[in-house]
Amino acid sequence: MGSVEAIRVGVVGLGSMGLGMATSLVKRGIAVSGYDLNPAAAAQLVQAGGRSADSAAEAARGADALVVVVVNADQTEAVLFGDGAAAREMQPGGVIAACATMAPQDARRLADKASASGLLYLDAPISGGAVKAAAGQLTIMASGSPEAFEKAHPVLEAMAGTVHRLGDAAGIGASFKMVNQLLAGVHIAAACEAITFAARLGLDLPTVYEVITGSAGNSWMFENRVPHILEGDYSPRSAIDIFIKDLGIVSDMGRHEKFPLQLSATALQLFLATAAAGMGRDDDASVARMIARLTGVALPESAKRE
Amino acid sequence: MGSVEAIRVGVVGLGSMGLGMATSLVKRGIAVSGYDLNPAAAAQLVQAGGRSADSAAEAARGADALVVVVVNADQTEAVLFGDGAAAREMQPGGVIAACATMAPQDARRLADKASASGLLYLDAPISGGAVKAAAGQLTIMASGSPEAFEKAHPVLEAMAGTVHRLGDAAGIGASFKMVNQLLAGVHIAAACEAITFAARLGLDLPTVYEVITGSAGNSWMFENRVPHILEGDYSPRSAIDIFIKDLGIVSDMGRHEKFPLQLSATALQLFLATAAAGMGRDDDASVARMIARLTGVALPESAKRE
Repeated sequence: MGSVEAIRVGVVGLGSMGLGMATSLVKRGIAVSGYDLNPAAAAQLVQAGGRSADSAAEAARGADALVVVVVNADQTEAVLFGDGAAAREMQPGGVIAACATMAPQDARRLADKASASGLLYLDAPISGGAVKAAAGQLTIMASGSPEAFEKAHPVLEAMAGTVHRLGDAAGIGASFKMVNQLLAGVHIAAACEAITFAARLGLDLPTVYEVITGSAGNSWMFENRVPHILEGDYSPRSAIDIFIKDLGIVSDMGRHEKFPLQLSATALQLFLATAAAGMGRDDDASVARMIARLTGVALPESAKRE
Repeated sequence: MGSVEAIRVGVVGLGSMGLGMATSLVKRGIAVSGYDLNPAAAAQLVQAGGRSADSAAEAARGADALVVVVVNADQTEAVLFGDGAAAREMQPGGVIAACATMAPQDARRLADKASASGLLYLDAPISGGAVKAAAGQLTIMASGSPEAFEKAHPVLEAMAGTVHRLGDAAGIGASFKMVNQLLAGVHIAAACEAITFAARLGLDLPTVYEVITGSAGNSWMFENRVPHILEGDYSPRSAIDIFIKDLGIVSDMGRHEKFPLQLSATALQLFLATAAAGMGRDDDASVARMIARLTGVALPESAKRE
């Protein structure tokens, strides 16, 4: 493996996650060329010391590694093999790290296409949020060939606090991510069901938060999302539409596997109801607002709005 | 408040929780008289230095405080005011600590009856499990009059690591407990749905446990119950039937309040399906076994059974 400085990395998708990942690479002295549809995002990368590319293909040109941080499998495929045509610009034998949440069969299909193009492929979904992305402390649930891991090693090291190495084939990382999203989605919706019910019962909601976070009913999501509800702040840290997408993939997978997923299906309906009520782009804790609207329960209002 | 030694406490219900609570009281030098339908439980209390009573009424005779740790509101009412007739044996002005999980309207009704009998009433549901009960480290979600709290103070101190003082009226403690049980029940069923789906996807289940417990999909229940599944050990730490009872109370409350509880309702159906398949008295992680049986997924088997 050459020195870190000799590695050239392209990053496609400079949203709240991708930008943090790209700047984490820059901080390690890695040459990064980034592309996003939104030029303002690329400008932030330039400020951090990276290079701004005018297209996905340009970001990929001559890259040893290409990190693709877009929304889903379709966008990843378009970037790599469709209009973006990024794959054919990379160094032969380079590695693609595909970070979008997607179904395992999509990850396997993209890996096959990469292989046919003479490239390595890492199925590398991420977890942790924008703050951890900016700090180079993401969790990556990765699977792929030993060669792909070796090639991607300095890139993963720079971006992640934890790299779970989950298997030799694409699709395994994606499967782990989807199991996590299943639980995360159900837990967000359950937190919203519980907190609105508590409001209907007349309980003091900050006390409910204190009691539950110290009890067996706690979840990572309850602890993380209920403060948004207590503050009446539904500006999107992560939007309802994201979980419609992710629980939608879970639902597709369940049908594909002929496997009943009753809680996930119910949670998806709650996210859909929230989007139908006009809150799809708001914070995913808005499931509570949807239930509150439906039932006439009063939730805290944002101090900012007054 | 007199010295601790001068207080006489009765404990009715010496199951895994009640016995630990009674022995915690004994360890603090408090005179305890305990009763359970099962004489073996009372014998264990005697070994620990307590006294065994032949009836609930005898356990309550002359008691300043009576801790009732039975299954539900009906049993609590029977102990206190029905066949057990324990309430009329207590010291006038004594305090009842009612620890069973029940609907808030039941807690309010029992408190009214206690008041009519010249007794104080603490709505005092508990959380934490048998190990914490034995260590005097329970969490108690309590509500009641200041007088009831004052009278019960040394008793709560001996049994609990944390006493949440939630309000001045019976019913509030019960409401908090039910919100906790709603979340706990949904999270157990979600853990079982996720882990069996992971098995169908061919994932290594111990690795799933490791990845999820470090990720945003984690819950207290996932962390606590999935090891039962990984060990194939469904001996009841807490049984399926307990959550059928508790989510049943949640369901009753939702209908009473005209409040939709979609995830709780779905989780209750999963616990019912598990009981219908003959596993009602097994560990509540048996929801995973039910799904595995239905879908043909293989879960780990107990080493002990081989």
